[in-house]
Amino acid sequence: MRKEVKFYTIKKEIRILGIDDAPFKFGRDKRTMLIGVVFRGGSYLDGVLRSDVEIDGVDATEKIIDMVKRAKFKDLRVIMLDGLGFGGFNLVDIEKVFMETSLPVIVVVRKMPDLNKIKKTIAQMKHSDFYLRCIEKAGVPREVETRKGKSIYIQYHGLKFEDAERIVKISATRSLIPEPIRVAHLIASGIALGESKGGA
Amino acid sequence: MRKEVKFYTIKKEIRILGIDDAPFKFGRDKRTMLIGVVFRGGSYLDGVLRSDVEIDGVDATEKIIDMVKRAKFKDLRVIMLDGLGFGGFNLVDIEKVFMETSLPVIVVVRKMPDLNKIKKTIAQMKHSDFYLRCIEKAGVPREVETRKGKSIYIQYHGLKFEDAERIVKISATRSLIPEPIRVAHLIASGIALGESKGGA
Repeated sequence: MRKEVKFYTIKKEIRILGIDDAPFKFGRDKRTMLIGVVFRGGSYLDGVLRSDVEIDGVDATEKIIDMVKRAKFKDLRVIMLDGLGFGGFNLVDIEKVFMETSLPVIVVVRKMPDLNKIKKTIAQMKHSDFYLRCIEKAGVPREVETRKGKSIYIQYHGLKFEDAERIVKISATRSLIPEPIRVAHLIASGIALGESKGGA
Repeated sequence: MRKEVKFYTIKKEIRILGIDDAPFKFGRDKRTMLIGVVFRGGSYLDGVLRSDVEIDGVDATEKIIDMVKRAKFKDLRVIMLDGLGFGGFNLVDIEKVFMETSLPVIVVVRKMPDLNKIKKTIAQMKHSDFYLRCIEKAGVPREVETRKGKSIYIQYHGLKFEDAERIVKISATRSLIPEPIRVAHLIASGIALGESKGGA
Protein backbone atom coordinates (compact mmCIF):
# COMPACT_ATOMS: atom_id res chain seq x y z
CA MET A 1 0.00 0.00 0.00
CA ARG A 2 1.55 3.26 -1.10
CA LYS A 3 1.47 6.24 1.23
CA GLU A 4 2.16 8.70 -1.52
CA VAL A 5 2.50 8.79 -5.26
CA LYS A 6 5.74 10.25 -6.53
CA PHE A 7 5.41 12.40 -9.61
CA TYR A 8 8.77 12.44 -11.34
CA THR A 9 7.47 14.57 -14.16
CA ILE A 10 4.06 16.17 -14.50
CA LYS A 11 2.96 16.35 -18.11
CA LYS A 12 0.90 19.30 -19.28
CA GLU A 13 -1.73 16.81 -20.42
CA ILE A 14 -1.79 14.70 -17.27
CA ARG A 15 -5.12 12.88 -17.14
CA ILE A 16 -7.30 14.16 -14.33
CA LEU A 17 -10.74 12.99 -13.20
CA GLY A 18 -12.63 16.11 -12.06
CA ILE A 19 -15.78 15.57 -9.99
CA ASP A 20 -18.65 17.88 -9.07
CA ASP A 21 -22.27 17.41 -8.06
CA ALA A 22 -25.42 18.93 -9.53
CA PRO A 23 -27.41 21.56 -7.67
CA PHE A 24 -30.38 20.06 -5.83
CA LYS A 25 -33.30 21.21 -3.76
CA PHE A 26 -32.96 20.48 -0.08
CA GLY A 27 -36.12 18.88 1.31
CA ARG A 28 -37.32 17.85 -2.15
CA ASP A 29 -34.51 15.73 -3.57
CA LYS A 30 -33.19 12.58 -1.94
CA ARG A 31 -30.22 12.22 -4.27
CA THR A 32 -28.28 14.38 -6.67
CA MET A 33 -26.21 13.71 -9.76
CA LEU A 34 -22.44 13.36 -9.61
CA ILE A 35 -20.50 14.26 -12.76
CA GLY A 36 -16.98 13.10 -13.52
CA VAL A 37 -14.97 14.52 -16.38
CA VAL A 38 -11.79 12.97 -17.68
CA PHE A 39 -9.63 15.89 -18.69
CA ARG A 40 -6.20 16.20 -20.22
CA GLY A 41 -4.49 18.67 -17.90
CA GLY A 42 -6.04 22.05 -18.55
CA SER A 43 -6.63 21.44 -22.22
CA TYR A 44 -9.47 19.15 -23.25
CA LEU A 45 -12.28 16.83 -22.34
CA ASP A 46 -11.79 13.14 -22.91
CA GLY A 47 -14.85 11.58 -21.32
CA VAL A 48 -17.86 12.10 -19.08
CA LEU A 49 -19.14 9.87 -16.28
CA ARG A 50 -22.34 10.02 -14.30
CA SER A 51 -23.24 8.72 -10.87
CA ASP A 52 -25.34 9.94 -7.96
CA VAL A 53 -25.10 10.48 -4.22
CA GLU A 54 -27.54 10.71 -1.34
CA ILE A 55 -28.18 14.21 0.05
CA ASP A 56 -26.40 14.41 3.45
CA GLY A 57 -25.61 10.71 3.14
CA VAL A 58 -22.36 8.75 3.45
CA ASP A 59 -22.02 7.16 0.01
CA ALA A 60 -19.91 9.78 -1.82
CA THR A 61 -16.64 7.96 -1.05
CA GLU A 62 -17.91 4.67 -2.51
CA LYS A 63 -19.54 6.38 -5.49
CA ILE A 64 -16.28 8.11 -6.38
CA ILE A 65 -14.28 4.89 -6.03
CA ASP A 66 -16.82 3.13 -8.30
CA MET A 67 -16.60 5.93 -10.83
CA VAL A 68 -12.81 5.64 -11.01
CA LYS A 69 -13.00 1.88 -11.43
CA ARG A 70 -15.65 2.17 -14.13
CA ALA A 71 -13.62 4.79 -15.96
CA LYS A 72 -10.87 2.34 -16.84
CA PHE A 73 -8.89 5.16 -18.37
CA LYS A 74 -5.63 3.52 -17.55
CA ASP A 75 -3.52 6.61 -17.57
CA LEU A 76 -5.73 8.49 -15.15
CA ARG A 77 -3.23 9.97 -12.68
CA VAL A 78 -5.11 12.10 -10.19
CA ILE A 79 -8.61 12.85 -8.88
CA MET A 80 -9.84 16.41 -8.29
CA LEU A 81 -12.92 17.14 -6.19
CA ASP A 82 -14.92 20.37 -6.16
CA GLY A 83 -14.97 20.62 -2.40
CA LEU A 84 -14.99 17.80 0.14
CA GLY A 85 -18.76 17.36 0.17
CA PHE A 86 -21.24 16.31 -2.52
CA GLY A 87 -24.99 16.31 -2.13
CA GLY A 88 -24.76 18.70 0.81
CA PHE A 89 -22.70 17.14 3.61
CA ASN A 90 -22.01 13.78 2.00
CA LEU A 91 -18.29 14.16 2.76
CA VAL A 92 -15.53 12.17 1.10
CA ASP A 93 -12.91 10.09 2.89
CA ILE A 94 -10.06 11.04 0.57
CA GLU A 95 -7.64 8.68 2.29
CA LYS A 96 -9.93 5.77 1.45
CA VAL A 97 -10.34 6.97 -2.15
CA PHE A 98 -6.55 6.96 -2.47
CA MET A 99 -6.18 3.53 -0.83
CA GLU A 100 -8.80 1.93 -3.06
CA THR A 101 -7.87 3.53 -6.36
CA SER A 102 -4.13 4.25 -5.92
CA LEU A 103 -4.85 7.70 -7.32
CA PRO A 104 -3.96 10.78 -5.28
CA VAL A 105 -6.79 13.19 -4.51
CA ILE A 106 -6.82 17.00 -4.64
CA VAL A 107 -9.79 18.86 -3.17
CA VAL A 108 -10.28 22.32 -4.66
CA VAL A 109 -11.84 25.00 -2.45
CA ARG A 110 -12.53 28.52 -3.71
CA LYS A 111 -12.15 30.29 -0.41
CA MET A 112 -10.77 29.35 2.97
CA PRO A 113 -13.58 27.57 4.79
CA ASP A 114 -14.43 28.32 8.41
CA LEU A 115 -13.60 24.86 9.71
CA ASN A 116 -14.82 25.56 13.25
CA LYS A 117 -18.21 26.66 11.98
CA ILE A 118 -18.46 23.60 9.74
CA LYS A 119 -17.54 21.29 12.63
CA LYS A 120 -20.25 22.86 14.81
CA THR A 121 -22.88 22.31 12.12
CA ILE A 122 -21.73 18.75 11.58
CA ALA A 123 -21.80 17.97 15.31
CA GLN A 124 -25.60 18.06 15.17
CA MET A 125 -25.93 15.83 12.13
CA LYS A 126 -26.72 12.14 11.83
CA HIS A 127 -23.35 11.10 10.44
CA SER A 128 -21.27 13.56 12.48
CA ASP A 129 -18.51 11.10 13.48
CA PHE A 130 -17.86 10.04 9.92
CA TYR A 131 -17.98 13.61 8.60
CA LEU A 132 -15.55 14.85 11.26
CA ARG A 133 -13.14 12.05 10.40
CA CYS A 134 -13.31 13.04 6.72
CA ILE A 135 -12.48 16.64 7.61
CA GLU A 136 -9.58 15.62 9.85
CA LYS A 137 -8.17 13.35 7.15
CA ALA A 138 -8.37 16.06 4.48
CA GLY A 139 -6.28 18.45 6.57
CA VAL A 140 -6.23 22.23 6.64
CA PRO A 141 -6.63 23.77 3.17
CA ARG A 142 -3.45 25.28 1.77
CA GLU A 143 -3.20 28.23 -0.55
CA VAL A 144 -2.26 27.89 -4.23
CA GLU A 145 -1.80 31.02 -6.32
CA THR A 146 -3.30 30.20 -9.73
CA ARG A 147 -3.20 33.80 -11.01
CA LYS A 148 -0.94 36.65 -9.96
CA GLY A 149 -2.28 37.77 -6.57
CA LYS A 150 -5.26 35.41 -6.74
CA SER A 151 -5.46 32.12 -4.91
CA ILE A 152 -7.59 29.09 -4.32
CA TYR A 153 -7.17 26.48 -1.57
CA ILE A 154 -6.52 22.77 -1.71
CA GLN A 155 -6.64 19.73 0.53
CA TYR A 156 -4.87 16.64 -0.73
CA HIS A 157 -3.95 13.06 0.00
CA GLY A 158 -1.54 10.63 -1.59
CA LEU A 159 0.88 13.17 -3.03
CA LYS A 160 3.19 15.92 -1.88
CA PHE A 161 1.88 19.48 -1.60
CA GLU A 162 4.39 20.63 -4.21
CA ASP A 163 3.09 18.09 -6.74
CA ALA A 164 -0.55 18.93 -5.98
CA GLU A 165 0.27 22.63 -6.40
CA ARG A 166 1.91 22.03 -9.77
CA ILE A 167 -1.00 19.94 -11.05
CA VAL A 168 -3.47 22.63 -10.00
CA LYS A 169 -1.42 25.37 -11.67
CA ILE A 170 -0.92 23.36 -14.88
CA SER A 171 -4.65 22.69 -15.19
CA ALA A 172 -5.98 26.17 -14.31
CA THR A 173 -5.61 27.36 -17.88
CA ARG A 174 -8.85 29.35 -18.28
CA SER A 175 -9.66 30.67 -14.82
CA LEU A 176 -8.55 30.48 -11.19
CA ILE A 177 -10.09 27.01 -11.05
CA PRO A 178 -8.56 23.90 -12.67
CA GLU A 179 -10.34 23.05 -15.93
CA PRO A 180 -11.55 19.59 -14.82
CA ILE A 181 -13.45 21.24 -11.96
CA ARG A 182 -14.71 24.21 -13.99
CA VAL A 183 -16.04 21.92 -16.72
CA ALA A 184 -17.53 19.32 -14.34
CA HIS A 185 -19.39 22.21 -12.71
CA LEU A 186 -20.68 23.61 -16.02
CA ILE A 187 -21.97 20.18 -17.06
CA ALA A 188 -23.56 19.31 -13.70
CA SER A 189 -25.35 22.64 -13.40
CA GLY A 190 -26.33 22.76 -17.09
CA ILE A 191 -27.90 19.32 -16.97
CA ALA A 192 -29.70 19.88 -13.67
CA LEU A 193 -30.94 23.42 -14.28
CA GLY A 194 -31.28 23.48 -18.07
CA GLU A 195 -28.45 25.97 -18.34
CA SER A 196 -25.12 26.22 -16.58
CA LYS A 197 -24.38 28.73 -13.87
CA GLY A 198 -20.96 30.26 -13.29
CA GLY A 199 -18.80 30.07 -10.20
CA ALA A 200 -17.78 26.41 -10.27
CA MET B 1 -34.49 39.35 -43.10
CA ARG B 2 -30.94 38.40 -43.95
CA LYS B 3 -30.29 35.70 -46.48
CA GLU B 4 -26.71 35.14 -45.37
CA VAL B 5 -24.37 36.29 -42.65
CA LYS B 6 -21.13 37.76 -43.90
CA PHE B 7 -18.09 36.84 -41.87
CA TYR B 8 -15.48 39.51 -42.43
CA THR B 9 -13.08 37.87 -40.02
CA ILE B 10 -13.43 34.55 -38.25
CA LYS B 11 -11.77 34.64 -34.84
CA LYS B 12 -10.13 31.52 -33.50
CA GLU B 13 -12.39 31.75 -30.48
CA ILE B 14 -15.64 32.38 -32.38
CA ARG B 15 -18.51 31.37 -30.11
CA ILE B 16 -20.29 28.30 -31.38
CA LEU B 17 -23.37 26.52 -30.02
CA GLY B 18 -22.82 22.79 -30.64
CA ILE B 19 -25.85 20.50 -30.31
CA ASP B 20 -26.20 16.73 -29.99
CA ASP B 21 -28.82 14.38 -28.60
CA ALA B 22 -28.47 11.59 -26.06
CA PRO B 23 -28.71 7.94 -27.06
CA PHE B 24 -32.19 6.51 -26.43
CA LYS B 25 -33.98 3.21 -26.65
CA PHE B 26 -36.39 2.98 -29.54
CA GLY B 27 -39.76 1.66 -28.40
CA ARG B 28 -39.07 2.46 -24.75
CA ASP B 29 -38.33 6.19 -24.70
CA LYS B 30 -40.75 8.85 -25.92
CA ARG B 31 -38.24 11.68 -25.69
CA THR B 32 -34.49 12.10 -25.50
CA MET B 33 -32.20 14.74 -24.10
CA LEU B 34 -30.72 17.47 -26.26
CA ILE B 35 -27.41 18.97 -25.13
CA GLY B 36 -26.09 22.34 -26.24
CA VAL B 37 -22.54 23.43 -25.53
CA VAL B 38 -21.32 26.98 -25.91
CA PHE B 39 -17.77 26.66 -27.11
CA ARG B 40 -15.04 29.13 -27.95
CA GLY B 41 -13.89 27.98 -31.36
CA GLY B 42 -11.98 24.76 -30.87
CA SER B 43 -10.61 25.73 -27.50
CA TYR B 44 -12.89 25.66 -24.50
CA LEU B 45 -16.32 25.17 -23.00
CA ASP B 46 -18.23 28.23 -21.87
CA GLY B 47 -21.64 26.85 -20.98
CA VAL B 48 -24.00 23.88 -21.15
CA LEU B 49 -27.70 23.85 -22.01
CA ARG B 50 -30.26 21.08 -21.80
CA SER B 51 -33.51 20.50 -23.61
CA ASP B 52 -35.35 17.48 -25.00
CA VAL B 53 -37.00 16.31 -28.21
CA GLU B 54 -39.65 13.78 -29.12
CA ILE B 55 -38.41 10.55 -30.75
CA ASP B 56 -39.36 10.72 -34.45
CA GLY B 57 -41.28 13.93 -33.72
CA VAL B 58 -41.20 17.37 -35.29
CA ASP B 59 -40.17 19.61 -32.39
CA ALA B 60 -36.37 19.66 -32.84
CA THR B 61 -36.46 22.92 -34.83
CA GLU B 62 -38.42 24.75 -32.13
CA LYS B 63 -36.38 23.23 -29.33
CA ILE B 64 -33.16 24.43 -30.92
CA ILE B 65 -34.56 27.94 -31.50
CA ASP B 66 -35.65 28.04 -27.83
CA MET B 67 -32.23 26.88 -26.70
CA VAL B 68 -30.51 29.66 -28.65
CA LYS B 69 -32.88 32.28 -27.24
CA ARG B 70 -32.41 31.00 -23.71
CA ALA B 71 -28.64 31.02 -24.11
CA LYS B 72 -28.47 34.78 -24.36
CA PHE B 73 -24.78 34.52 -24.98
CA LYS B 74 -24.80 37.64 -27.06
CA ASP B 75 -21.72 36.94 -29.06
CA LEU B 76 -22.86 33.50 -30.19
CA ARG B 77 -22.09 33.52 -33.91
CA VAL B 78 -22.99 30.13 -35.34
CA ILE B 79 -24.90 26.93 -34.56
CA MET B 80 -23.45 23.46 -35.25
CA LEU B 81 -25.61 20.35 -35.31
CA ASP B 82 -24.42 16.75 -35.03
CA GLY B 83 -26.42 15.58 -38.02
CA LEU B 84 -29.76 16.87 -39.25
CA GLY B 85 -31.88 14.64 -37.01
CA PHE B 86 -32.22 14.40 -33.23
CA GLY B 87 -34.24 11.80 -31.41
CA GLY B 88 -34.21 9.52 -34.44
CA PHE B 89 -35.84 11.25 -37.41
CA ASN B 90 -36.86 14.48 -35.67
CA LEU B 91 -35.27 16.52 -38.47
CA VAL B 92 -34.34 20.19 -38.23
CA ASP B 93 -35.51 22.93 -40.58
CA ILE B 94 -32.19 24.77 -40.63
CA GLU B 95 -33.59 27.59 -42.76
CA LYS B 96 -36.14 28.32 -40.04
CA VAL B 97 -33.50 28.12 -37.31
CA PHE B 98 -31.50 30.74 -39.20
CA MET B 99 -34.53 32.96 -39.81
CA GLU B 100 -35.61 32.89 -36.17
CA THR B 101 -32.21 33.26 -34.53
CA SER B 102 -30.21 35.14 -37.20
CA LEU B 103 -27.45 32.62 -36.59
CA PRO B 104 -26.12 30.55 -39.47
CA VAL B 105 -26.30 26.78 -39.10
CA ILE B 106 -23.68 24.15 -39.95
CA VAL B 107 -24.69 20.47 -39.90
CA VAL B 108 -21.77 18.12 -39.35
CA VAL B 109 -21.97 14.65 -40.88
CA ARG B 110 -19.22 12.08 -40.41
CA LYS B 111 -19.72 10.25 -43.65
CA MET B 112 -21.60 10.94 -46.84
CA PRO B 113 -25.18 9.83 -46.20
CA ASP B 114 -27.15 7.80 -48.76
CA LEU B 115 -29.82 10.44 -49.33
CA ASN B 116 -31.94 8.24 -51.59
CA LYS B 117 -32.09 5.52 -48.97
CA ILE B 118 -32.99 8.04 -46.28
CA LYS B 119 -35.74 9.52 -48.45
CA LYS B 120 -37.21 6.06 -49.03
CA THR B 121 -37.31 5.37 -45.28
CA ILE B 122 -38.85 8.75 -44.61
CA ALA B 123 -41.54 8.29 -47.27
CA GLN B 124 -43.18 5.69 -45.02
CA MET B 125 -43.11 7.82 -41.88
CA LYS B 126 -45.79 9.94 -40.25
CA HIS B 127 -44.10 13.29 -40.81
CA SER B 128 -42.64 12.46 -44.23
CA ASP B 129 -43.53 15.75 -45.95
CA PHE B 130 -41.90 17.85 -43.26
CA TYR B 131 -38.83 15.61 -43.09
CA LEU B 132 -38.34 15.69 -46.86
CA ARG B 133 -38.57 19.48 -46.84
CA CYS B 134 -35.89 19.62 -44.11
CA ILE B 135 -33.60 17.44 -46.21
CA GLU B 136 -34.17 19.53 -49.33
CA LYS B 137 -33.47 22.74 -47.44
CA ALA B 138 -30.23 21.40 -45.95
CA GLY B 139 -28.82 20.61 -49.39
CA VAL B 140 -26.32 18.00 -50.48
CA PRO B 141 -23.50 17.55 -47.93
CA ARG B 142 -20.17 18.99 -49.04
CA GLU B 143 -16.75 17.70 -48.12
CA VAL B 144 -14.45 19.51 -45.69
CA GLU B 145 -10.93 18.18 -45.13
CA THR B 146 -10.26 18.63 -41.39
CA ARG B 147 -7.06 16.53 -41.39
CA LYS B 148 -4.68 15.79 -44.21
CA GLY B 149 -6.50 13.25 -46.40
CA LYS B 150 -9.40 12.94 -43.96
CA SER B 151 -12.75 14.61 -44.44
CA ILE B 152 -16.12 15.14 -42.89
CA TYR B 153 -19.23 16.52 -44.63
CA ILE B 154 -21.33 19.57 -43.91
CA GLN B 155 -24.71 21.03 -44.81
CA TYR B 156 -25.22 24.71 -44.02
CA HIS B 157 -27.60 27.61 -44.20
CA GLY B 158 -27.16 31.34 -43.71
CA LEU B 159 -23.49 31.55 -44.62
CA LYS B 160 -21.18 30.89 -47.56
CA PHE B 161 -19.61 27.46 -47.93
CA GLU B 162 -16.15 29.02 -47.62
CA ASP B 163 -17.02 30.57 -44.25
CA ALA B 164 -18.63 27.35 -43.00
CA GLU B 165 -15.53 25.45 -44.09
CA ARG B 166 -13.22 27.84 -42.22
CA ILE B 167 -15.29 27.66 -39.04
CA VAL B 168 -15.26 23.85 -39.17
CA LYS B 169 -11.49 23.75 -39.70
CA ILE B 170 -10.78 26.31 -36.98
CA SER B 171 -12.82 24.37 -34.44
CA ALA B 172 -11.64 20.83 -35.29
CA THR B 173 -8.62 21.16 -32.99
CA ARG B 174 -8.61 17.72 -31.37
CA SER B 175 -10.06 15.37 -33.94
CA LEU B 176 -11.75 15.30 -37.35
CA ILE B 177 -14.89 16.65 -35.69
CA PRO B 178 -15.31 20.26 -34.50
CA GLU B 179 -14.88 20.48 -30.72
CA PRO B 180 -18.41 21.80 -30.01
CA ILE B 181 -19.83 18.63 -31.57
CA ARG B 182 -17.28 16.24 -30.05
CA VAL B 183 -17.90 17.65 -26.57
CA ALA B 184 -21.71 17.85 -26.90
CA HIS B 185 -21.59 14.17 -27.86
CA LEU B 186 -19.38 13.19 -24.90
CA ILE B 187 -21.69 14.98 -22.47
CA ALA B 188 -24.95 13.66 -23.96
CA SER B 189 -23.74 10.06 -24.04
CA GLY B 190 -22.02 10.29 -20.65
CA ILE B 191 -25.15 11.59 -18.94
CA ALA B 192 -27.50 9.14 -20.64
CA LEU B 193 -25.37 6.00 -20.38
CA GLY B 194 -23.36 6.71 -17.24
CA GLU B 195 -20.19 6.92 -19.28
CA SER B 196 -19.43 8.55 -22.59
CA LYS B 197 -18.92 6.61 -25.78
CA GLY B 198 -16.60 7.71 -28.58
CA GLY B 199 -17.47 8.50 -32.15
CA ALA B 200 -19.41 11.76 -31.77
